[in-house]
Amino acid sequence: MATRKMRLGMSMRGIGYHPAAWRHPDVPADGTLRIDHYVRNAQTAERGLFDMIFFADGIAIREKDLPRGSLARSGFELAEMEPLTLLPALAMVTKHVGLVTTASTTYNEPYHLARKFATLDLISHGRAGWNIVTSWSDAEGRNFNRDKHLDYDTRYERAAEFVEVVKGLWDSWEPGALVYDRESGVFYDESRMHELNHVGKHFKVKGPLNVAEMPQGRPVLFQAGAAGQGRDIAAQHAEVIYAAQDTIGDAKTYYDDVKGRLARHGRDWDDLKIMPALRPVVGRTRAEAQAKFDELQELLDPMVGLARLYNEFGDLSGFDLDGQVPEPQGEPQVRSGAEHILARARRHNLTIRQLGRQLAGEGNSCVIGTAADVVDRMEEWFTGGACDGFNITPNVLPGGCDDFVELVTPELQRRGLFRTAYEGRTLRENLGLKPHVNRYEAARRAAAAE
Amino acid sequence: MATRKMRLGMSMRGIGYHPAAWRHPDVPADGTLRIDHYVRNAQTAERGLFDMIFFADGIAIREKDLPRGSLARSGFELAEMEPLTLLPALAMVTKHVGLVTTASTTYNEPYHLARKFATLDLISHGRAGWNIVTSWSDAEGRNFNRDKHLDYDTRYERAAEFVEVVKGLWDSWEPGALVYDRESGVFYDESRMHELNHVGKHFKVKGPLNVAEMPQGRPVLFQAGAAGQGRDIAAQHAEVIYAAQDTIGDAKTYYDDVKGRLARHGRDWDDLKIMPALRPVVGRTRAEAQAKFDELQELLDPMVGLARLYNEFGDLSGFDLDGQVPEPQGEPQVRSGAEHILARARRHNLTIRQLGRQLAGEGNSCVIGTAADVVDRMEEWFTGGACDGFNITPNVLPGGCDDFVELVTPELQRRGLFRTAYEGRTLRENLGLKPHVNRYEAARRAAAAE
Repeated sequence: MATRKMRLGMSMRGIGYHPAAWRHPDVPADGTLRIDHYVRNAQTAERGLFDMIFFADGIAIREKDLPRGSLARSGFELAEMEPLTLLPALAMVTKHVGLVTTASTTYNEPYHLARKFATLDLISHGRAGWNIVTSWSDAEGRNFNRDKHLDYDTRYERAAEFVEVVKGLWDSWEPGALVYDRESGVFYDESRMHELNHVGKHFKVKGPLNVAEMPQGRPVLFQAGAAGQGRDIAAQHAEVIYAAQDTIGDAKTYYDDVKGRLARHGRDWDDLKIMPALRPVVGRTRAEAQAKFDELQELLDPMVGLARLYNEFGDLSGFDLDGQVPEPQGEPQVRSGAEHILARARRHNLTIRQLGRQLAGEGNSCVIGTAADVVDRMEEWFTGGACDGFNITPNVLPGGCDDFVELVTPELQRRGLFRTAYEGRTLRENLGLKPHVNRYEAARRAAAAE
Repeated sequence: MATRKMRLGMSMRGIGYHPAAWRHPDVPADGTLRIDHYVRNAQTAERGLFDMIFFADGIAIREKDLPRGSLARSGFELAEMEPLTLLPALAMVTKHVGLVTTASTTYNEPYHLARKFATLDLISHGRAGWNIVTSWSDAEGRNFNRDKHLDYDTRYERAAEFVEVVKGLWDSWEPGALVYDRESGVFYDESRMHELNHVGKHFKVKGPLNVAEMPQGRPVLFQAGAAGQGRDIAAQHAEVIYAAQDTIGDAKTYYDDVKGRLARHGRDWDDLKIMPALRPVVGRTRAEAQAKFDELQELLDPMVGLARLYNEFGDLSGFDLDGQVPEPQGEPQVRSGAEHILARARRHNLTIRQLGRQLAGEGNSCVIGTAADVVDRMEEWFTGGACDGFNITPNVLPGGCDDFVELVTPELQRRGLFRTAYEGRTLRENLGLKPHVNRYEAARRAAAAE
């Protein structure tokens, strides 16, 4: 029996990650706008002892989704609840599960985010987490006074400074700063309240933050993807990475690379948990699991498949969908991605319709099988040094979450890979992360020790 | 018996509006950071059939609060929960009461606020309200890349455009746009989804909003104060004004002026409710009420009184607190405000200590007495054409809210001035406001009628 336990997150954006999820008879098509839908899934994840529920987010509807009309058929990333407003509500109907959401450093101000996540930490008694992203789509830029998104380097430079500011604001009030001394009339100890007085390239923020006493010291910091410059920011700041590798080899390489950077920032190997995405389709038998997947694939509108091919092949809606996939056009960079896909089509003799359906429906790291099959795959990665746990991205909600908790969780527990009860009171404790030490308290301790 | 009913809001920022509230033995000094404190008060307000709970907000700690040290003794506007993150939590533990918070047009982006308030409306099944403010303090500016706040004209110009954008975004999805047609595979009707494509002086926002189907059509719009240019914005946009007049004469003048502006914007007299602040200190007898007030006044630290006098008289901490109030110094504008206060001190022969305590402890529109006394005052204003209801700003929480609901609400009901059950399902319905009609739906109807 392993003593090291797997970490699990349940990705809960909307009604599931399969683009035909909304057409499934057991899925509420309007679930992205219904609080009861989110409540049910959060409570199921907590029953399954998940470390956290996790929300991806975007600040625009999808726009890249041509050919025209395909967006109206996908139901994906259109109208949904804003997750940082949703999570406080879910905090009131759960007790243990962590509450993590994405928020962009490109289109926010650090003071606002610091305040909101600190408040979520208070409301949830220590279960808040922030997934740091820089945003990338032109569509988002166009809702925030721009014609397109910020360029890559500026985004990452701004992100790094943004995170520094937020961390600084979170340390504004040392533990013990608020003394509430009714007798003497002193509400707080001025020597333990700290202005940040940050002046940088992107931000000028005086502080202090007007929130204090977060149960976790500060919320847990997440990053998704973390490629390129993101790896360095992750190695410096992130406590959890949601990764996206498809093979155990790639995952191990990534794991070792990012964990290897921690020491440079004075951090230990275990100070950062890496959790790749996993999309299990689980049944009591393999046939049942396959049937679940096939049912969804059948519901996929051909237009949604064409939209999936648009980036690489352009608009194929004028072609015979039951004919061969044409040679890609356009710039060399685009063509090279397309040729990889084309090779697959040729290898399996797929029509345009079939190729679009396959690519649109599979997503990343899809595993179709029994609970034992799914856990075999998880165990191999986990014990093989490729990850610290997984971020589950179900095809459909609530079904995908229900299935996992009913079938996969017990199998993970039977093999000693996963908890049988929450260990701690906070998300930070459940993840096995060190307590946060306020910077001023640390300095005070260091000075006292000299 | 009156058929027109009074509207009531409970102002719930922190632990009450008296600066010594936190020293009171029945007040949780750390209540501003405790979810159970907010839950209790929200549920009490709902038991008392309040139209809404209301949160003021600032995006900085108080800074003007000199002389040095006084801030550490007031406990006011320091560390507290961010209200737009708090309200979704309160939505889950209440069913009827409206959920209204302040958010600044100066330090936010319209897309974010439109999304968050729309989400709150969904979570609460139609109880969201936004109190539009422009912010004014340098302290807030310094947390958002500025050395001081924006100038008055620019703030109001930006606010007007901001509100236009938010209203436009809220109309992005016409009712019926989301068709969820599983059979045909069409998720939404493209002809009923509308990009805003706003290009103005302060904002460029493409839209559509990625939230839809708000139960209220859109959240209710509030304004606080609404002086100067604010009156025109209020007459154009606001559905409720939290006013601040101290006398019935001033209140009537204000009421008639603002209501008189509505027609210019094609609005009816009843499309805007005006609710001045009221701070009742209520007891079963007048003596009990006075004793409650005196107890708080006794707890007021002299330093907090000096801070109240700082703006007009400068730092008086070097003077004998039990001596006479000195002549004001400084610029003529400041002196004229100070002379008004000084006249009062001379009239009642008040020392520095006594004057500071009186001004700091009284606040606006304080009424001390029995439930009958308080309701007499409310009835006089309400039936006298000075208001449509009141915004209660209790000295202490939970006590001030408890007292109102236990003692004042029944007396209001006995006189037929207030509801005995919620009339509607949404805040908009309870306030007696017209349903919101989506602009595109209105145009469609108008075209069909021709």
